[in-house]
Amino acid sequence: MPAVTVREALIARDRIKHLVRETRMELSPSLSDFMKVPVYLKLECHQATGSFKLRGATNAIAGLTSQQRALGVVTASTGNHGRALSYAAAAAGVRATVCLSRLVPSNKVAAIRALGAAVQVVGNSQDDAQFEAARLAQEEGLTFIPPFDHQDVIAGQATLGLEIAEQLPSVSQVLIPLSGGGLFSGVSLALKALLPQVKTHGVSMRLGAAMAQSLEAGKPVNVEEVATLADSLGGGIGLRNQYTFELTRRFIDRVILLNEDSIADAMLHAYLEERLVIEGAGAVGIAALLTRQVEAQGPIVIVVSGGNVDMAQHQRIILEAVRDRRPARA
Amino acid sequence: MPAVTVREALIARDRIKHLVRETRMELSPSLSDFMKVPVYLKLECHQATGSFKLRGATNAIAGLTSQQRALGVVTASTGNHGRALSYAAAAAGVRATVCLSRLVPSNKVAAIRALGAAVQVVGNSQDDAQFEAARLAQEEGLTFIPPFDHQDVIAGQATLGLEIAEQLPSVSQVLIPLSGGGLFSGVSLALKALLPQVKTHGVSMRLGAAMAQSLEAGKPVNVEEVATLADSLGGGIGLRNQYTFELTRRFIDRVILLNEDSIADAMLHAYLEERLVIEGAGAVGIAALLTRQVEAQGPIVIVVSGGNVDMAQHQRIILEAVRDRRPARA
Repeated sequence: MPAVTVREALIARDRIKHLVRETRMELSPSLSDFMKVPVYLKLECHQATGSFKLRGATNAIAGLTSQQRALGVVTASTGNHGRALSYAAAAAGVRATVCLSRLVPSNKVAAIRALGAAVQVVGNSQDDAQFEAARLAQEEGLTFIPPFDHQDVIAGQATLGLEIAEQLPSVSQVLIPLSGGGLFSGVSLALKALLPQVKTHGVSMRLGAAMAQSLEAGKPVNVEEVATLADSLGGGIGLRNQYTFELTRRFIDRVILLNEDSIADAMLHAYLEERLVIEGAGAVGIAALLTRQVEAQGPIVIVVSGGNVDMAQHQRIILEAVRDRRPARA
Repeated sequence: MPAVTVREALIARDRIKHLVRETRMELSPSLSDFMKVPVYLKLECHQATGSFKLRGATNAIAGLTSQQRALGVVTASTGNHGRALSYAAAAAGVRATVCLSRLVPSNKVAAIRALGAAVQVVGNSQDDAQFEAARLAQEEGLTFIPPFDHQDVIAGQATLGLEIAEQLPSVSQVLIPLSGGGLFSGVSLALKALLPQVKTHGVSMRLGAAMAQSLEAGKPVNVEEVATLADSLGGGIGLRNQYTFELTRRFIDRVILLNEDSIADAMLHAYLEERLVIEGAGAVGIAALLTRQVEAQGPIVIVVSGGNVDMAQHQRIILEAVRDRRPARA
C-alpha cells in the first residue's frame, strides 16, 4: 500500500476547496495540430499564488493539530512553496515564518511579507536559512513544512490529479514536471487510481535532474545543482527521502529530459501561441512535445505547473527569439 | 424605460451559462499600490474565444426563432465578434457565415474556419464583405447579427455587469472599454440596477473615438477611422444607431480618452506586472489608471475585455520598452 492513496486525495480536496481554485483545462489548437492528437493544458499557472504548490501547502496547514496551529509553521523556501505556505497559513490564521539569507533580493522579501508571513533574515546562504528554519522547529516548536516529502503535501498535489480525471476522463497521457516528486507522485497516484490506463511521464531539465538520477541509481542520490531555466525544478530529493522517491518509482512510466534551449523554446511557444506567460518549470511538458519525445497517443494533458517567472528572464527569451528570427515551432 | 434592462440580463445569464465562463476577478497588487485603493481586474481575456463578445453572441443565437436557426446567421467581422459568433453558432448547431474580403490574411481565415463557421471570401475591402453579408441576409434569409447595436447582444454583455456586482458588491468605480457601446451599455445598466452608487467610466483611444464624439455632438456622428493599438475599439457606432447610443448616454459617468503611448504602456504593465498578454482594447482601463485620470476612490474594477492581440505587435511593444529602458510605471 503506497504511503499516500487516492483516499487521502479525496479528503484533501474537501479540506482545501475554500482556498484552492479548480483550474481550467484548455485545448491547445497549436499543440494539437503539431501532435495530430488533442493536447490540453492544465493551467495551474492560474492557481492562486501562481502555482500548484498552494494545494499541498493548504492541505498541510489543514492537517496541523491545534497545538501546532498555535505555534506556527516554518519553511526556508523563497520560491513557489514559500509563497504558497505563506498564503495558506495567513488564510488559516496560522503564523508562518520564512527564513531567508541576506542574499535574497529585497523585492522577494517584500513579496513574501505581502503574503502575510513573518520573515527571518539570517546568514549568507540558503543553507544558513535552512539551518535557522530547523532550529526554529526544534527549539521553538514551529512545525517545519517541507516542500514535497510530506504525506499531506503529496495528498494536496494529488487533488490536481483528481481534477484532470474529472475534466478529461478520456485522457491517455499526462506530462508532469518532475522535481522532488511531490507533484508527480500526487498527480500520478490519483490519476492511476481513477483511470488505470493513463500513462504518466515525468519531465525535467537534463541539468541536475535529482529524481531522474535517483531513479536510475535505484536510491536517492545527491546531484550537483546547476543553473537552469526550470529553476523551480532544481534541488535534491533528500538522501533520507521518505515518500516521494518510492511513489515516483512506483507510478512513473517514463522520464523525459530536456536541454535548456528546448525549455526556452517552450516558454516562447506558450507566449506566442497560447498567450501564456509561464516559468521554465511550467513549460517542460510543452518542451517534451515540441522535441518529439512523446508518442502521438491522445488526448495528452500537459500540467503547466506555474507562472512565477522572473520577467527579465522572460523578456530575454522573447528578445533572443526575435533577434534570431526563431519562430515558434508549432 | 431603457431598451434593455437588468431583467434581460438575468434572462441572458441563464441562457448562456452552458457556454460562457464566469471569469475571475483578480486583485492587482501593483495597481492597488499605485492607486492606494484596491484595484481588481475582471479577466474577460480568459473568456472562451478570448473576449467578452462570446456573451452577446451566445445570447443572440439563443434568441433566434426556430426558422432563423434553420437558415443560419451571418456577420462580416473578422475580429472578436466574428470569432465569438462562429463559436456560439457552432455550439448551438446553427450555421454561421462570415463574409471576408480577399485582403484578410489566410491565418485569420483559417482561424474563423477552425471555429466552425463557413467563410465567404468576396471583394477587396471590408465594405465589400459587409455588403455581401447584407445581401445574404436580404436575399437568402440569413439573420444578420450586428456586433453591438442589438438588444440580445447588449443583454449578453450585461451578464458581465451581473458578475462584477456579485463578485465585488463593494465596488465603487468600473472602467469599461468604450467602442460601439455594447459592452459599456450592458455592463453599466446591469451594475447600476444592482448597485446604484457605482460610477461607470467609458475608456477609449483618442484617435477615432466614435462614441465619445457622438456623445459630445448629442447624436451619432461619423468619425474618421485611424490605426490604433486598441483596434478592437475602432469603427463607427452607426448613424442610425438604435440602442447603444442612448443607453451609453444614459449610464455613462465619464469618458476617458487615451493616447497611443499610454495604451502601449498599459499592455507592457499587464505583461510585466500581471503576467497577462492582452490586446490594446483590453488594456485601456489600466492605461486610464496609469495616466492618473481616475480618482483614488475604490474598490476600482477594470474590465480587461480581451486578449486577442497580434503577437508581432505585442513583441514590438516589449522590445521597444527594453530598448528605451522604460520600466513599467507601477
